Amino acid sequence: MSFSTLVRRVENELERRIDAGIESEGRLSQAMRYAVFNGGKRLRPLLVYACGETLDLPVERLDAPACAVELIHCYSLVHDDLPAMDDDDLRRGRPTTHLAYDEATAILAGDALQALAFQVLAQDGRLHHQSPAGCGMIAELASACGVSGMAGGQARDLELEHKQPDQATVETMFRMKTGALIRAAVMMPTALAPDLPSTQIQALREFGEEIGLAFQIRDDLLDVEGKTEVIGKQAGADQALGKANWPELFGIEGARRRIDELDARARAALDRVERDTSGLHKLADRLLHRAT
Amino acid sequence: MSFSTLVRRVENELERRIDAGIESEGRLSQAMRYAVFNGGKRLRPLLVYACGETLDLPVERLDAPACAVELIHCYSLVHDDLPAMDDDDLRRGRPTTHLAYDEATAILAGDALQALAFQVLAQDGRLHHQSPAGCGMIAELASACGVSGMAGGQARDLELEHKQPDQATVETMFRMKTGALIRAAVMMPTALAPDLPSTQIQALREFGEEIGLAFQIRDDLLDVEGKTEVIGKQAGADQALGKANWPELFGIEGARRRIDELDARARAALDRVERDTSGLHKLADRLLHRAT
Repeated sequence: MSFSTLVRRVENELERRIDAGIESEGRLSQAMRYAVFNGGKRLRPLLVYACGETLDLPVERLDAPACAVELIHCYSLVHDDLPAMDDDDLRRGRPTTHLAYDEATAILAGDALQALAFQVLAQDGRLHHQSPAGCGMIAELASACGVSGMAGGQARDLELEHKQPDQATVETMFRMKTGALIRAAVMMPTALAPDLPSTQIQALREFGEEIGLAFQIRDDLLDVEGKTEVIGKQAGADQALGKANWPELFGIEGARRRIDELDARARAALDRVERDTSGLHKLADRLLHRAT
Repeated sequence: MSFSTLVRRVENELERRIDAGIESEGRLSQAMRYAVFNGGKRLRPLLVYACGETLDLPVERLDAPACAVELIHCYSLVHDDLPAMDDDDLRRGRPTTHLAYDEATAILAGDALQALAFQVLAQDGRLHHQSPAGCGMIAELASACGVSGMAGGQARDLELEHKQPDQATVETMFRMKTGALIRAAVMMPTALAPDLPSTQIQALREFGEEIGLAFQIRDDLLDVEGKTEVIGKQAGADQALGKANWPELFGIEGARRRIDELDARARAALDRVERDTSGLHKLADRLLHRAT
């Protein structure tokens, strides 16, 4: 399936699962929809589908993890944008959730979206009697969200404001803040393929980790180079906050070289998977060489 | 096992699981510990253990759900206390997490505690090859946390500030905000007892729902009657915020009668379980007739 077909697929699946999970028509439900249906590129669901394709998994088994990882991503954006965090006004050209609604509703919408992500995975696991895989995917995703992953990385990002951290410190923070969830997107389908050799699991994990880091450096580069109307958030927002930004700290040319280096390592890891990884290769192109 | 033995047990289990889930020694980890080891009464874990005892389940199988429900409860307190929400300064006689740390750290600590709760359940499910039960418990807990449960109830609570809602509206909000998680504590062990007849599952659900609502009305009553030094948060805090408080809206005597009525219904539901429910009866005493 083409990426655009899969994006439409996950949009429909998100609609369906949010309708099932959201019974009421209140303000909180509206804020959750606002946060999820935001014109996002759905890169993490695409990673789930592409990895599943590489492992010859039927696409229906990938819908729940694809939705779950996107729900987590959407919740994290809502919380990251809050006044106490990055204090952003715009997200993809629209007011951020706490401005479109209010701060309390934005906090609760993020909280409820995180819960919904795990609900989607757990209900799917129960439904399909694929429960060992269900628990495996939930453990993978939960660990990516926690103190050793996304939340921990965001906390470190805030701690590093107005400091001059070295490259290793910044990259460790990036691997937690952004990389952990991208790795989880790649790893969740492996829980559905119990016979996959551990060397191939390891190769896929490495691919996820390397593109996850490269993706965040690329994001920083866009922030420095970009214009507000192209990337849909205020350009140079990192600079204004004194946030650790890779190219600002270590140079624009260095950032480009580092992305290429990580990209090459990610491709080399894919070559060790010994399966048709063309979808993952194409997706790496999109993640690392996108204009927006 | 006595309640005090079980409280010590869950404290140790929380220590162990937080140590396993928290690898770093950073500020976020400290804030998570601060939020969890707070002198809480661990009523929800006690409900898990008491319901498990009623169902003749080995106590080791109850440790993960007991920890998970308490981690969710602790996260919800951190977020509820935030300036954008209830803006509380004190929690059990100590500064609230956003005052002891800062607001961003408190938001992230709550987020990471929610993730840790699901991680604890998922890893346990994988470990013990009780995965269908694992997914069942995760679905139960996640649904209790979401827009139809705790987060949705908190949103409605904020919407009702400075209004004069009727009793049904307030009680629906209480059943979501407080009752859903208490019901989940009672229901999670039923996922570990696959042969339990549906009539007994239904009776336990009803018990959880009735004591959940009664518990919140009792909490409101303590807020009105209490002194700051006894309940460890500012007495009359609801009144100051203009929050919907059952006895303030519908009378103190009425509140006492309503608690007794719900209590009687909860006991009647327990009688339909046709097992030794003495632990659950004792716990209902503690929940509804506690001094603090």
